[in-house]
Amino acid sequence: MNRRDALKLVAAGAVGVVSGEAGAAVVNTDPRKASMAKWSVAEIQLQGPAEGNPFVDVQVAAEFTKGARVVRVDGFYDGDGVYRVKWMPDEEGQWQWCTKSSTKVLDGVKGWLLCTPPEKGNHGPVGVRDTFHFGYADGKRFFPFGTTCYAWVFESERLQEMTLANLAKSGFNKVRMCVLPKTFAAGEPERHPFPMVGGKLDFTRFDVEFFRHFETRIRNLGELGIEADVILFHPYGKPWGYDQMPKEVNERYVRYVVARLGSLRNVWWSLANEYDLLKTWTMPEWDHLFRVIEEADVAGHLRSVHHSGPMYDYAKPWVTHASLQTAEFDKTAEWKKAWGKPVVFDEVQYEGNIWRRWGNLTGEELTRRFWLAVTAGAYCTHGEVIAVKDSKDGMSADGGVLLGESPQRIAFLRKLVEETNVGLQQMEGAYYRAANGNAGNPGEVILYYFDYHRPANYPFPLPDGGTYKAELIDPWAMTVTALPGTFTGKSDITLSGRPYQAVRFRRV
Amino acid sequence: MNRRDALKLVAAGAVGVVSGEAGAAVVNTDPRKASMAKWSVAEIQLQGPAEGNPFVDVQVAAEFTKGARVVRVDGFYDGDGVYRVKWMPDEEGQWQWCTKSSTKVLDGVKGWLLCTPPEKGNHGPVGVRDTFHFGYADGKRFFPFGTTCYAWVFESERLQEMTLANLAKSGFNKVRMCVLPKTFAAGEPERHPFPMVGGKLDFTRFDVEFFRHFETRIRNLGELGIEADVILFHPYGKPWGYDQMPKEVNERYVRYVVARLGSLRNVWWSLANEYDLLKTWTMPEWDHLFRVIEEADVAGHLRSVHHSGPMYDYAKPWVTHASLQTAEFDKTAEWKKAWGKPVVFDEVQYEGNIWRRWGNLTGEELTRRFWLAVTAGAYCTHGEVIAVKDSKDGMSADGGVLLGESPQRIAFLRKLVEETNVGLQQMEGAYYRAANGNAGNPGEVILYYFDYHRPANYPFPLPDGGTYKAELIDPWAMTVTALPGTFTGKSDITLSGRPYQAVRFRRV
Repeated sequence: MNRRDALKLVAAGAVGVVSGEAGAAVVNTDPRKASMAKWSVAEIQLQGPAEGNPFVDVQVAAEFTKGARVVRVDGFYDGDGVYRVKWMPDEEGQWQWCTKSSTKVLDGVKGWLLCTPPEKGNHGPVGVRDTFHFGYADGKRFFPFGTTCYAWVFESERLQEMTLANLAKSGFNKVRMCVLPKTFAAGEPERHPFPMVGGKLDFTRFDVEFFRHFETRIRNLGELGIEADVILFHPYGKPWGYDQMPKEVNERYVRYVVARLGSLRNVWWSLANEYDLLKTWTMPEWDHLFRVIEEADVAGHLRSVHHSGPMYDYAKPWVTHASLQTAEFDKTAEWKKAWGKPVVFDEVQYEGNIWRRWGNLTGEELTRRFWLAVTAGAYCTHGEVIAVKDSKDGMSADGGVLLGESPQRIAFLRKLVEETNVGLQQMEGAYYRAANGNAGNPGEVILYYFDYHRPANYPFPLPDGGTYKAELIDPWAMTVTALPGTFTGKSDITLSGRPYQAVRFRRV
Repeated sequence: MNRRDALKLVAAGAVGVVSGEAGAAVVNTDPRKASMAKWSVAEIQLQGPAEGNPFVDVQVAAEFTKGARVVRVDGFYDGDGVYRVKWMPDEEGQWQWCTKSSTKVLDGVKGWLLCTPPEKGNHGPVGVRDTFHFGYADGKRFFPFGTTCYAWVFESERLQEMTLANLAKSGFNKVRMCVLPKTFAAGEPERHPFPMVGGKLDFTRFDVEFFRHFETRIRNLGELGIEADVILFHPYGKPWGYDQMPKEVNERYVRYVVARLGSLRNVWWSLANEYDLLKTWTMPEWDHLFRVIEEADVAGHLRSVHHSGPMYDYAKPWVTHASLQTAEFDKTAEWKKAWGKPVVFDEVQYEGNIWRRWGNLTGEELTRRFWLAVTAGAYCTHGEVIAVKDSKDGMSADGGVLLGESPQRIAFLRKLVEETNVGLQQMEGAYYRAANGNAGNPGEVILYYFDYHRPANYPFPLPDGGTYKAELIDPWAMTVTALPGTFTGKSDITLSGRPYQAVRFRRV
């Protein structure tokens, strides 16, 4: 195929801008008329060489230009000679685009794109707000209350559908999920991200069917308003060699994933789960891959990495937030000061009943951990590993139906945090105490959590000059009981005498 | 009075050896016939000058000699011209004694003492055993399960008697108690350790009545088999100037207390409670007072100091064990390694309902903390601050009646620890796990505590070569349920699914 063939395809309408989150392609014969809503996916489809190994041999990109602004987006090979460049337009107005490739037929293809206002309900990608919090690109706040479905895309179709149906009912708005399969979930996967050839993975190519499916699942989550915290590496794929891929494979894989998925607005990048258990990796390799993502991902999605033992240095500039495995909530203030970034306790052990130490919290204990994280001015992530005899439908943190008692309590807490408008920051004081802060009207909402403490009463030191209404909150019963009257200054309030209770003050 | 008068008193029987723990004096006209049971109190009473300030002006000591061994014991002034030297004989056989003083009438008085076998039930003072544990001088093990009655000797007589009656019923075998009064307990004390003159304490003298009473209370505890962890300083006496006494007063006070009480076998020395809150003190002063005690206390009672924030360096040679205020049980192994001494978590917050953060644990939470300490190979101390409306009989960690729910659970745990014979040492493993060790037959008893974890089952990795019986233990219900059969190697056992449960294995 030569450049003339490619141009012919343009004329025939196979090259153009495809819009529609649900994958319904709107093919424009006149690219100048292509219009795309902001934060949806603009896609250029090109026909190019299919011979050899295009995943390795062929590079294609597109430059989107508006005034002085030029955004260069890497494309990817999607099999059968088809190349795609996908981009999430982030600025309304008229854009020009032009493809770039050393492969002649893919180079210099041009078109127009009119970026129109976002569709209703599309708030754009999530980024950092006010140093320690999150928000969508349109300004709406985002308070992550996530769960983990690490290997759910490798489960049976039935279980995947159950997972989505279940998530739709739950109060979770973020899901941690792996691109690479895990050995201890879902058995041998039907498809890997790399093609299986003769019982061995071919790390020089990608399985495009796998990635189409993976993308669909991210879109499915997006339709539910759920962010996909996409985990690129983990140490649980040893039998398939995922822990020992050559460096160039790691980088090619990262670039391919970013090119395929980076245009989806609900993506976050988690470079790895328990990165430090990949024992042969060195810190410069991790740093390098972070920089690869930072450069390749023009949408600038959130980037972090999750640890088992030693933490990654979250102060490094390419990390957007901390993604912790620990229950040391007391250290949040210290960490926020050191890193100047949001802190997400992404793994604090799981509600469950399995014998492994990390998998048998009560619902009460996991609920408690969420409260400790939130009143420390941080965020927390749920997980469940409830083994049900003779059933495979339990989530095991990999998808399925949630059986635990914490999710509804976490949803209750999420609602309380959303009612702060701007999120919470920890206040100094005798008990776990946080106020809404960093923006808006700090001290408008003050939330106390008493954890295992159960004072019969407490002299709450309310900020000078404010008049507050008080509510007793039972985090487990999910009740909010307003107290009569208003409160100013030091206010001694009788409490229930039971542990794990909370009190909220709202300025009148 | 001259030396002749003093000698006359000897002849008249007022100088001699007084025996009897309960204070019943056996006065011997012929000191050579004086016989004393080992680890009881031998007392030499001398008549000397009463004029001036004998507390400062007059020193007296006695040397007890047996073969090559010479024990020099400081005496003290007890008012009305009476001087006493009190000593706890620690070796059976014939001892000679001779007083030493620069005051002539008190110098060179001599006598004999036959130390006989200890009375039944007298196991001697407690010391360190097997590096990390405790034992009486006669070899019997001592496992500290203490409580706190800081200011109980300053309470009303009625409350003091209630305290003793209550302790007699409880399972506690150690009491932390202060020599100096606290401002926030019991109101203005009837007596201070120093005489009150014109509304001000005279720090150049001691109130002998106070000390007689204090000694009686230690003896009362001893009769109940309870060790008295005597706290010499604390920061809660500011209105009376206890936090700002001149250095020479601090030292004279320490020497006086040691001379008066060091002969009581159930004494431990706690140099201070929250030493670091005495802000004007320097570390060399603390070190110095430790060395003063070490030198003056010929019985070699246990010595430690308790902190609020920064710990004292428990590796220092004059400290016998760590006395911690923290609930960081996870660090026990590290600390034991660093200090090579027993670790006692002497303050882990209190069962109670007051608003102060340290005073409102549930009974469940305090019970849990004891289990965490014990399975870390350490020891723990109880305290209670339950405020009862319109009542002053609650303990408030200062004496009275225990109303809480943890004491009986702590007594249950004490029994389990005593059944290990030699105490527990932490084992590596997924859960809180300790085995009896350091002596006897290590691994004969293995105790698991699951804390907040509630696995449905657990594959216990029993040590190779051992056959064990297993018991499910409910620390709150205080039940021990034997499982049928015996277990070897990896043994998967179904558990209750409830949190805060324990399992004990005993080698067959």
